[in-house]
Amino acid sequence: MAGERRPVTHPAGERRVTLLSDFGTDDGYVAAMKGVIASLSPDTFLDDVAHELPRGDVRAAAWTLRRYWHLYPSGTVHLAVVDPGVGTSRRALAAEVSGRFFIAPDNGLLSWVFHDGGTGRTLAIDAERHGRMPLSGTFHGRDVFAPAAGRLAAGLPFVELGSAIEDPVRFTVPAPRRQSRGSRPVVEGEVVHADRFGNLISNIPMEWVDDPGAARVLVEGTSVGRIRNTYGDVEPQELLAVGGSDRKLEIAVRDGSAARRLGRGVGAAVRVELDGGSRASTS
Amino acid sequence: MAGERRPVTHPAGERRVTLLSDFGTDDGYVAAMKGVIASLSPDTFLDDVAHELPRGDVRAAAWTLRRYWHLYPSGTVHLAVVDPGVGTSRRALAAEVSGRFFIAPDNGLLSWVFHDGGTGRTLAIDAERHGRMPLSGTFHGRDVFAPAAGRLAAGLPFVELGSAIEDPVRFTVPAPRRQSRGSRPVVEGEVVHADRFGNLISNIPMEWVDDPGAARVLVEGTSVGRIRNTYGDVEPQELLAVGGSDRKLEIAVRDGSAARRLGRGVGAAVRVELDGGSRASTS
Amino acid sequence: MAGERRPVTHPAGERRVTLLSDFGTDDGYVAAMKGVIASLSPDTFLDDVAHELPRGDVRAAAWTLRRYWHLYPSGTVHLAVVDPGVGTSRRALAAEVSGRFFIAPDNGLLSWVFHDGGTGRTLAIDAERHGRMPLSGTFHGRDVFAPAAGRLAAGLPFVELGSAIEDPVRFTVPAPRRQSRGSRPVVEGEVVHADRFGNLISNIPMEWVDDPGAARVLVEGTSVGRIRNTYGDVEPQELLAVGGSDRKLEIAVRDGSAARRLGRGVGAAVRVELDGGSRASTS
Repeated sequence: MAGERRPVTHPAGERRVTLLSDFGTDDGYVAAMKGVIASLSPDTFLDDVAHELPRGDVRAAAWTLRRYWHLYPSGTVHLAVVDPGVGTSRRALAAEVSGRFFIAPDNGLLSWVFHDGGTGRTLAIDAERHGRMPLSGTFHGRDVFAPAAGRLAAGLPFVELGSAIEDPVRFTVPAPRRQSRGSRPVVEGEVVHADRFGNLISNIPMEWVDDPGAARVLVEGTSVGRIRNTYGDVEPQELLAVGGSDRKLEIAVRDGSAARRLGRGVGAAVRVELDGGSRASTS
Repeated sequence: MAGERRPVTHPAGERRVTLLSDFGTDDGYVAAMKGVIASLSPDTFLDDVAHELPRGDVRAAAWTLRRYWHLYPSGTVHLAVVDPGVGTSRRALAAEVSGRFFIAPDNGLLSWVFHDGGTGRTLAIDAERHGRMPLSGTFHGRDVFAPAAGRLAAGLPFVELGSAIEDPVRFTVPAPRRQSRGSRPVVEGEVVHADRFGNLISNIPMEWVDDPGAARVLVEGTSVGRIRNTYGDVEPQELLAVGGSDRKLEIAVRDGSAARRLGRGVGAAVRVELDGGSRASTS
Repeated sequence: MAGERRPVTHPAGERRVTLLSDFGTDDGYVAAMKGVIASLSPDTFLDDVAHELPRGDVRAAAWTLRRYWHLYPSGTVHLAVVDPGVGTSRRALAAEVSGRFFIAPDNGLLSWVFHDGGTGRTLAIDAERHGRMPLSGTFHGRDVFAPAAGRLAAGLPFVELGSAIEDPVRFTVPAPRRQSRGSRPVVEGEVVHADRFGNLISNIPMEWVDDPGAARVLVEGTSVGRIRNTYGDVEPQELLAVGGSDRKLEIAVRDGSAARRLGRGVGAAVRVELDGGSRASTS
């Protein structure tokens, strides 16, 4: 057997399910979801993403999901439950985008997935048919979302999960803008995420900055200087701008927290003066 | 292969082991247990439940275990190690209840499992035979419990783990009572768990409340009002009583914490006046 | 099938990968690494170790790794990313020690592994060949380390990961000393780790203490008394010395924290007077 490789295509029952929630782990709610999935699809790998997300913070969860969904192989089922509207009439969503499957409440949690990967196919999950009946009013993670994920993992065709919808809830993803101030070309964006290290991640793509070494970055008017290649280009505790891991402009402090240093977070204005550096260097 | 399903019965070596502890993860103690299990049974899925439980709090662990054990498929091995008595003469327990296996110190951790699923079969694990010898005095998670879980997962018949016992340690699970106050039928119970969201979960089964909309709920004398169907039936930050996810009466605050609002926790008296609502509505 | 056992040798693509980092889980960085591994090696078990390690604390990570690496079966891939030097010229390391594989930045993280298991074979990973190009300057966990782990898990022969090196970075592991003070034999060591329970773990092997019951232990001059067999040998909240789970001398408080009680941590001097106890008992 050694040296042999199983085919990369996933036979039914060998898929991988990832789990993201704000449930915490102490109360066993996450394990309840895992048990439901494992009962429906015993040979499925269950990968934890995070379960201590800020309670009810759909935008934070949407951003976290953005980080990893596309890195998992085709056929993966991404289960994401941050669900402040549990028990209301909000729909339960299943989506297929770029070959990955998503199971989530219909509250905007997939906004970044749709933004980056396209809307793909979306369904309203038929909970009467696939859920654990009678549904509780408070724990659809166990009663609706986990059963849907488990059935997908077990090989149920996606389209059988529910009925197609065209209008999943999406929040507006802030877009960067190219502008000219007098003759100076600038890019204006904003901080869209502050990570655990205090890095401030903007929505400005590095592709918009032709000459990073010549550009000057400002956060709410405070200069952060030129764009560097990596943290190691500055001294410890020094502030810097850098192309981040998803090729968006990030503001960081080496071995420290830019969020704390600048007192800024999500929504802070970020401006890149594309020739600001070269001018400054000659003045 | 696509569309085919493996049988749901678990061949030896393909079982699933869940892990619950108060070890935290930073020190590598949990990973040590995982390594021991993986060495004995390489093809086993290892599902984390929680590892940041309050240190030594056997009752909290027993409650958490209650949430998920029955949702996992038959044949699952549930490993739970909250073990303030490590190194004393307390026994190491193996149990089989409703087709699931349990490995835990004999300190009451399985009390809710026994309450809900019946006592099943219980053994005192033969550590001399199955443990990692010489046993440490401080880490039976690695030296006794993980080896027992690994051997079960690898297909060792349950009865070979040790010798049958009839008296596993159980703490008293508080029981609700039906009463009449004058002519008013009431149910009296208590809070048995406060979860991470601050929901206060009582031991009162919703089946005892024929007409939830007519009932009135009080916590330590403070009225919580009628029983609702779900959080969405009240405004944000409003207090409510609701049938919880395991069909026990819960006290909650929508998008908030009932534990903080009421200043109450485990042990608080919960009373349901079954016709309290209808009377109040006519007074 | 029941009762049958698969062979313990791991066919390619069925290996197990463990993950240790200081990334936290909320931002999805860990899930990004898991996705990369799962894409390269879909049938691989992914076991979390810990992700909330103190940021950038290579020594703490090295100690944690020490706890579990050898308990996992031969063929396991241990991925460990605490990487304050990301983006600098520090090398990316692959190692094989005692049949286990290691993927980590070359910053001393494997010092305890090398100390306990021998240096084995070490390579500098060829990121140009195996990484996700173009490499980010800030997230080699995803771009270098996870790809290397995934390829190993998928069956790539170890030697193909890069070019052999002889000088991986190692920090000095503090060594205990046997001494005589006058005619009194003593062992002098130090605290090398404080765990989440506040246990102070020294570098003094229990094998150096012939008669534990006769020895007297001091931490920075404060007497901790004789060496006990287990926590249960003293009253709750009492300080004790005990042979720890890896057969090193530990200082603990039963149901409490020795770190807090003594106000001591890593680096504190630990002295064992081998006949201190017998003398004291006759005085």
